[in-house]
Amino acid sequence: MTGFSVTPVTGLPELREGDDLAGAIVERIDLADGDVVVVAQKAISKVEGRVVAVADIEASEQARELAADTDPRRIQVILDEAAELVRTRPPLIIARTKHGFVCGSAGVDASNAPEEGTLVLLPLDPDGSAARLRDELRERTGANVGVLVTDSFGRPWRAGTTDVAIGAAGVEVLRILDGEKDPAGYELHATRMALGDQIAGAAQLVFGKLDRVPVAVVRGLDVAGDQTAAELVIPPETDLFR
Amino acid sequence: MTGFSVTPVTGLPELREGDDLAGAIVERIDLADGDVVVVAQKAISKVEGRVVAVADIEASEQARELAADTDPRRIQVILDEAAELVRTRPPLIIARTKHGFVCGSAGVDASNAPEEGTLVLLPLDPDGSAARLRDELRERTGANVGVLVTDSFGRPWRAGTTDVAIGAAGVEVLRILDGEKDPAGYELHATRMALGDQIAGAAQLVFGKLDRVPVAVVRGLDVAGDQTAAELVIPPETDLFR
Repeated sequence: MTGFSVTPVTGLPELREGDDLAGAIVERIDLADGDVVVVAQKAISKVEGRVVAVADIEASEQARELAADTDPRRIQVILDEAAELVRTRPPLIIARTKHGFVCGSAGVDASNAPEEGTLVLLPLDPDGSAARLRDELRERTGANVGVLVTDSFGRPWRAGTTDVAIGAAGVEVLRILDGEKDPAGYELHATRMALGDQIAGAAQLVFGKLDRVPVAVVRGLDVAGDQTAAELVIPPETDLFR
Repeated sequence: MTGFSVTPVTGLPELREGDDLAGAIVERIDLADGDVVVVAQKAISKVEGRVVAVADIEASEQARELAADTDPRRIQVILDEAAELVRTRPPLIIARTKHGFVCGSAGVDASNAPEEGTLVLLPLDPDGSAARLRDELRERTGANVGVLVTDSFGRPWRAGTTDVAIGAAGVEVLRILDGEKDPAGYELHATRMALGDQIAGAAQLVFGKLDRVPVAVVRGLDVAGDQTAAELVIPPETDLFR
């Protein structure tokens, strides 16, 4: 094991709906079998047109109640993306999205939006987005790469956000060691490592929020697999923190 | 920005109380200014003697109640390490440690313990451990490095563990962007990135649970700073998930 590298893909243009993201990536970096291409959710959402204009939104009574002194139309967009509200402290909302992710504002974000007055939503099907991008990258380069789509989530008890994998294709996102033995012979009963989230976090270290670098390539990890990011979501009924 | 690399430090001996960890590291890898040396908690705890023999423990009534069909002496060790029990489903315990970390079994772990019948506890003062190791590495090499001490924690809602920073010296563990503007001029109101946890997770990708590699060197990140890992803990009174 000689370690791994994380390389940002710099110089990408500002992305718009319908843009050829795979083409923009392969123009800027060489890919090889086993690489993991990590893409910030916002880049995927923009090319997929998952952007709404606040001016087109009509706020409900519930949205006005939860908005405190902020724009209730933004809250309405969050409510529309949410399957369940997990915690609220107006105007802060932690919600479970329709995909099952628990995160702030149901993943709705105004920063790095394409233009003033717009909000970026999570992709409808981030695992599908990852699979499509993986296929497109293979068609262009012949390289068998993995793809992760990532977003920055807050966590209970710990300050700050870390990036997690919300979409995956061709990657072992959850390594399960149950039943294997450590060097001393101790059986590792419940060791499950969230590789996908750790790779997402590593990539975020080169994204930067201010520098508009939404893609990185991770090379040297042995994490080829066929799991989706849905594997990283604990079903509510088995979650001790439900 | 040309990215960064994560290199495992291989060939370390099995560590015992009083061993010279800094010496063992510098014998095996070159260090340079700006590197971050990431050390799995268990390596620190072993050289600091934070290991208990289960045979020396007497279980309380509470420990027997929480043990279900497992060894109540192990539960007693967890109770002794805990400041507060956050969730219990016998024999599973999520606790807040005396340092303030919320994690499974209050950080008490049997895997990779030095010998059968022993349990490894978290360091008493992981930030202090990181600071001491940093000083020792600088004395030996002249290099001004950062040090992180890490452990694998579970999280609500998401499957698997990710490594987080429980001790830090010379590292910017929490980058706060409040008030800065993204390229579109949108003010980033509450963007705080848990760099320390993301670096910890990146290093864990080369640790491996089975391969006994407890140290990695991260090179190429611009994260020199002077925060402690305590910065990554949300005080209970301000935590929406309390």
